[in-house]
Amino acid sequence: MATAEANALGYNLQVDYVIQYSFGDIDQPQAIENLQKLLRALNDVGLQTEVRQGDESSLLIFVRASKGQLKRAVYRSRVRDWLYGIRNTEPEPADSIDPHAETEAERLRVINHLITLPTQEGGAGITPQHGEWKNVTAVFPLHDEETNKRWMREWSQKTFLSEDDLDQIRNKFGETVGFYFAFLQSYFRFLIFPAVFGFGCWFLLGGYSIIYTVVNSLWCIIFVEYWKRQEVDLGCRWQTKGVSAVQTKRREFKPEKEVVDESTGEVRGVFPTTKRMQRQLLQIPFALLAATALGVIIATCFAIEIFISELYNGPLKTYLVFIPTILVSALVPTMSAVLVSIATKLNDYENHETSDGYDVALTQKVFVINFMTSYLPVLLTAFVYVPFASWIVPHLDVFRLTVRPFVSKEHSIAKRSNFQIDPARLRNQVIYFTVTAQIVGFAMETIVPYIKQHAFRKYKAFNKKRNGRSERNGDKESPERQPAIVFDDPAEEVQFLTRVRNEMELSEYEVTEDLREMCIQFGYLALFSPVWPLVPVSFFANNWIELRSDFFKICNEFRRPTPLRSDTIGPWLDTLGFLSWTGSITSAALVHMFSGNPQQGPNGEPTDIKGWALLLSIFLSEHLYLAVKYVVQTAMGKLEPPNARKERAERYLLRKRYLESTLTVPTEADSAEDDPSGPPGLSRVSLENEARRSSMQDTDPAERFWMRQRGWSESAKVGAGIIQAQPIARNTKKQQ
Amino acid sequence: MATAEANALGYNLQVDYVIQYSFGDIDQPQAIENLQKLLRALNDVGLQTEVRQGDESSLLIFVRASKGQLKRAVYRSRVRDWLYGIRNTEPEPADSIDPHAETEAERLRVINHLITLPTQEGGAGITPQHGEWKNVTAVFPLHDEETNKRWMREWSQKTFLSEDDLDQIRNKFGETVGFYFAFLQSYFRFLIFPAVFGFGCWFLLGGYSIIYTVVNSLWCIIFVEYWKRQEVDLGCRWQTKGVSAVQTKRREFKPEKEVVDESTGEVRGVFPTTKRMQRQLLQIPFALLAATALGVIIATCFAIEIFISELYNGPLKTYLVFIPTILVSALVPTMSAVLVSIATKLNDYENHETSDGYDVALTQKVFVINFMTSYLPVLLTAFVYVPFASWIVPHLDVFRLTVRPFVSKEHSIAKRSNFQIDPARLRNQVIYFTVTAQIVGFAMETIVPYIKQHAFRKYKAFNKKRNGRSERNGDKESPERQPAIVFDDPAEEVQFLTRVRNEMELSEYEVTEDLREMCIQFGYLALFSPVWPLVPVSFFANNWIELRSDFFKICNEFRRPTPLRSDTIGPWLDTLGFLSWTGSITSAALVHMFSGNPQQGPNGEPTDIKGWALLLSIFLSEHLYLAVKYVVQTAMGKLEPPNARKERAERYLLRKRYLESTLTVPTEADSAEDDPSGPPGLSRVSLENEARRSSMQDTDPAERFWMRQRGWSESAKVGAGIIQAQPIARNTKKQQ
Repeated sequence: MATAEANALGYNLQVDYVIQYSFGDIDQPQAIENLQKLLRALNDVGLQTEVRQGDESSLLIFVRASKGQLKRAVYRSRVRDWLYGIRNTEPEPADSIDPHAETEAERLRVINHLITLPTQEGGAGITPQHGEWKNVTAVFPLHDEETNKRWMREWSQKTFLSEDDLDQIRNKFGETVGFYFAFLQSYFRFLIFPAVFGFGCWFLLGGYSIIYTVVNSLWCIIFVEYWKRQEVDLGCRWQTKGVSAVQTKRREFKPEKEVVDESTGEVRGVFPTTKRMQRQLLQIPFALLAATALGVIIATCFAIEIFISELYNGPLKTYLVFIPTILVSALVPTMSAVLVSIATKLNDYENHETSDGYDVALTQKVFVINFMTSYLPVLLTAFVYVPFASWIVPHLDVFRLTVRPFVSKEHSIAKRSNFQIDPARLRNQVIYFTVTAQIVGFAMETIVPYIKQHAFRKYKAFNKKRNGRSERNGDKESPERQPAIVFDDPAEEVQFLTRVRNEMELSEYEVTEDLREMCIQFGYLALFSPVWPLVPVSFFANNWIELRSDFFKICNEFRRPTPLRSDTIGPWLDTLGFLSWTGSITSAALVHMFSGNPQQGPNGEPTDIKGWALLLSIFLSEHLYLAVKYVVQTAMGKLEPPNARKERAERYLLRKRYLESTLTVPTEADSAEDDPSGPPGLSRVSLENEARRSSMQDTDPAERFWMRQRGWSESAKVGAGIIQAQPIARNTKKQQ
Repeated sequence: MATAEANALGYNLQVDYVIQYSFGDIDQPQAIENLQKLLRALNDVGLQTEVRQGDESSLLIFVRASKGQLKRAVYRSRVRDWLYGIRNTEPEPADSIDPHAETEAERLRVINHLITLPTQEGGAGITPQHGEWKNVTAVFPLHDEETNKRWMREWSQKTFLSEDDLDQIRNKFGETVGFYFAFLQSYFRFLIFPAVFGFGCWFLLGGYSIIYTVVNSLWCIIFVEYWKRQEVDLGCRWQTKGVSAVQTKRREFKPEKEVVDESTGEVRGVFPTTKRMQRQLLQIPFALLAATALGVIIATCFAIEIFISELYNGPLKTYLVFIPTILVSALVPTMSAVLVSIATKLNDYENHETSDGYDVALTQKVFVINFMTSYLPVLLTAFVYVPFASWIVPHLDVFRLTVRPFVSKEHSIAKRSNFQIDPARLRNQVIYFTVTAQIVGFAMETIVPYIKQHAFRKYKAFNKKRNGRSERNGDKESPERQPAIVFDDPAEEVQFLTRVRNEMELSEYEVTEDLREMCIQFGYLALFSPVWPLVPVSFFANNWIELRSDFFKICNEFRRPTPLRSDTIGPWLDTLGFLSWTGSITSAALVHMFSGNPQQGPNGEPTDIKGWALLLSIFLSEHLYLAVKYVVQTAMGKLEPPNARKERAERYLLRKRYLESTLTVPTEADSAEDDPSGPPGLSRVSLENEARRSSMQDTDPAERFWMRQRGWSESAKVGAGIIQAQPIARNTKKQQ
């Protein structure tokens, strides 16, 4: 680790952060003044700076923290953690901190705090793209390409990442990213079982097998519970347990009033929780809106598709069949985008205090949208099309009007009579979503951007060369080209600076996106895999690649993320629980409806499904699910994760040590008054005490009571007396 | 408080604990030796003793803790708490503890520890009724009758107990009892609303009104969540948060092996959790057994009752109708007793480590039995008798055979034809369980024992007088009477000792019994109150009495309980949640089945209930319930209970104070190296450093990179240069 880091430092010329300062949109003097302000601010918190040219309208400011400052900053942050109960051990004083002992992630996080924290908290108070610092367009650390490359190489050879690998990811990119990969890893590892089992079921039992369904939802339960436990474990292992307490405030948070916390004596802006809750009630109408809006679109396109593919057979059918697909892929994303923007507005309105709370709330809102777009089509096929097709389809004639020009009367009549639902539709749809869509998604998120990026760079390089030539031809004046030609970089830095400029052009990484993807995937497994037991197999294969490609993505297609801490994958955890629960309902319904005749299930006539039987099986399966879940939870709760135990023991020892240092010996008078060695009543001191007392307060009944027997031996005598008084009688009785 | 306590002390002659030592079953020398051992042991931990006669076969050993010992013991226990994170503040050293500052409960708890804790933990290691101490038949503190009487008087005048009253209860009887009364109090307070609302509904809408049902289950949710919050609050208020961590081991716990906890270095016996879990699996068959056993009994008696009351009308009917009642009240308790004993055996077999864990497990098992005995009859009526009567009743002819001798043929024929279910049965049953049964219960648990007790004392007094007389008549020899005549007590102590002897004869108080009662009551409210909306009214009235009578019970019919700590009502909390959940199912079903014709509901023909509609309404209501519950939970979770906030702030301040005491100033060298006042590059020291470095390691690219610009001002210049170089072009462009 330390060595790798050292390399990294050397490799990046010990640059900790790069700040991009754009001066494109303001006039010179202003720009220069701001720049000075920025540099001074950085310098004031003890950060060393170097300025280079970024591109035609921006500067690169390289930042390095001096050892002493770094030490002090690290100390400050650790103490802060300790205050909030994240660290159990009190941090050793600043001077004794070895600046290479702590992880790269911690160092970067601390320096980032130095740059961004408000001045009163000991930072430079620089807020990128916000307020007076809106010219600071980006603050990012530099990738450690060598290490990244090395890891990619290593990982491509092994199936599972070791705990150590995960630690390293965490040390490079911080806990949030670490948690994502840890999750992906355990999910991947857990997929082995259903993959094998599913393959077996598919081979032997085909789809809709009860056995598979039961095992599958049992697996879901165990996985979710396991991961909860794992989070605790990682939280202890990475010392981020309860880190959410130290969340820094959101810049956008608008406090309603300033109050002095009478107990802690800190002045802080507050926004009444109740008020926020009232605002949060808007989520309900929003959810309904989103559901209906997307529902209508999807349902309509769905109906059109059925109409065209199965009812209509007029001319142009070959072309018309594409209409619904086009419509969906055109309308759904647009609508989602609109809804997301609304969700964001709502979220801003809720005015969350911490960025954490903000993200959670937003995720919840966005999940509604995701749920609709991801699962609704399949749900429609399974629970609307299959049972009710024969009722609904006739009403699809409305579309007939639209295509009247093409279709002649007898067609329509001919068709409607012998309509037959497509038995394979459901399975095909599931296969599409769990295989095709996954691959497409992978392509879209990883390969395409990569190609685009390279194409772009190629173009720039070419452009530069041409300009170079044209320059030799002596036209220096073409202004917008000129910057692209010569950055007067010192020769030895050229390569380095090009790399930095390339990284500068990349966009920021959002881990939540990748998490969402995984949860949605998990959803398919929980909700629909009984339809086609090979789903887990496909996911298993997919996630092996996913894990690598995501890492590749972070390293090559995004700026290196600023390390953030976290002790959970956050709201997505609830999502997982929710999905596996819903799964217990849908899969029961699916199995009940289709297991009878796996070939096609009901023939579109709802009559042959017993409503009460269906509902009963759903009811039973759901409650069985909940019962099992409860059992698993309690069982897992009893097994304490290793790191948690270690952490607890550590805390215990810490307190104990502290205690021993403060433990007091009993004072002289004390020990004399009642020295345990001899009966207190008989020790000289207390005898006198007794005497004095009795003489003093002869009247006190209590004292008289307690003075009847002096010390335990007298009591014993008295007791013996009483005992001897009694049992003779009994003994005699015994003898009689 | 302090004054009241002082009184109490004076009143009880400063006796802290009374130990009952029975020598009835062993011979004299043995008895005397044991007594000496006991007294010495007590003395060794610094407890002062006085011996008096108990009854013919037992001694009373009065125990008082000397100030110094008490101080040290209190300190030890507080430190222990602090070690386990129950106290945030480190306790002040022993000498500075004011032995009257701490509550009576704490003092008694500590002294109890002094008596019972094993010697290595600083106690006398006396284990009543166990091992070598089996002659110690009881260890109990004395009631503070004056205070108790005063409280009874005060409370009988007011409707609600104040927080202060609860604190006092806790100070006298410890947290477990305190928590029970706190719970009873909040439950009682919460009942106001449903009582009023229920009365309104009953008056306006009659039974089975949807509105009432919805409001009722909403109320259940809120109450349960509120109480959870309340527990946290009380836990902080009474400083017992996380107290379950300090549970003392069960004496009966059989460790499988001794291990040295490598991290804490403590040797402790362990029993593998997994093994215990395997054993706990036996709960499942047990639950099934209990359910069936009780189910069969209840169902049979139920059937017989229906047969006799509604089918049979032969001779002797007037007498026969009592048979089922007799059977039930004979068989059910017997069976329950059997099952409870099985449950206890199972629980022992599970070999729990802490008495807490043991109680929890036992409660869970016993709850199954309670559930059956309390709710099954009503459930049978509602969901078997009412819908299926007309199917089932004919099959009851089996009983006809048994009564063949009495009944003539035509009777039977005559009857079966025009059978009619009794529409009022369900409501009557509910009324019986929620009114009659409550009153009966109250009588059984409070009044009857009180009468018995007094009768007993009267008898003894009478007996004594007679013996007194007979003694004067000179027959001294009648041995078994003799002890009953004269305890040679000092005159002034007679009254006191009689009181003590009376208390000695009482039995021990078990708070869990009362809790169970309340939870079962809550169950009726959640499950069946839609049938008869006056249920909460009845409970409201009942609980006003319950609260007083329970207190009365503790004071007069039980020994004063040894104060125990707790931060929850324990497993009963889950029970409440479970019951209110089940309520969402049953009440939905009830309303769906009966709301149509409130007069009588379905006429015994299942045909007129739509299976799917019923199940659908259950499904919907349940999920609505869960959704609402989730919302309420999250909402309540956001509102931090006052004491919890205080506690957090306190912890925070504690740490902060501690921090400030350890905060180090940056050392000289440190601050010199990069003094924030001026740009580090320009400060003398660092200039030299720079020079030295550059000369030394000219080759290091990083150093060269960082030495190009010395300090922020140079950077600024360079930056300005670049900026000026650029924008001319742009400006010119702009102008174009």
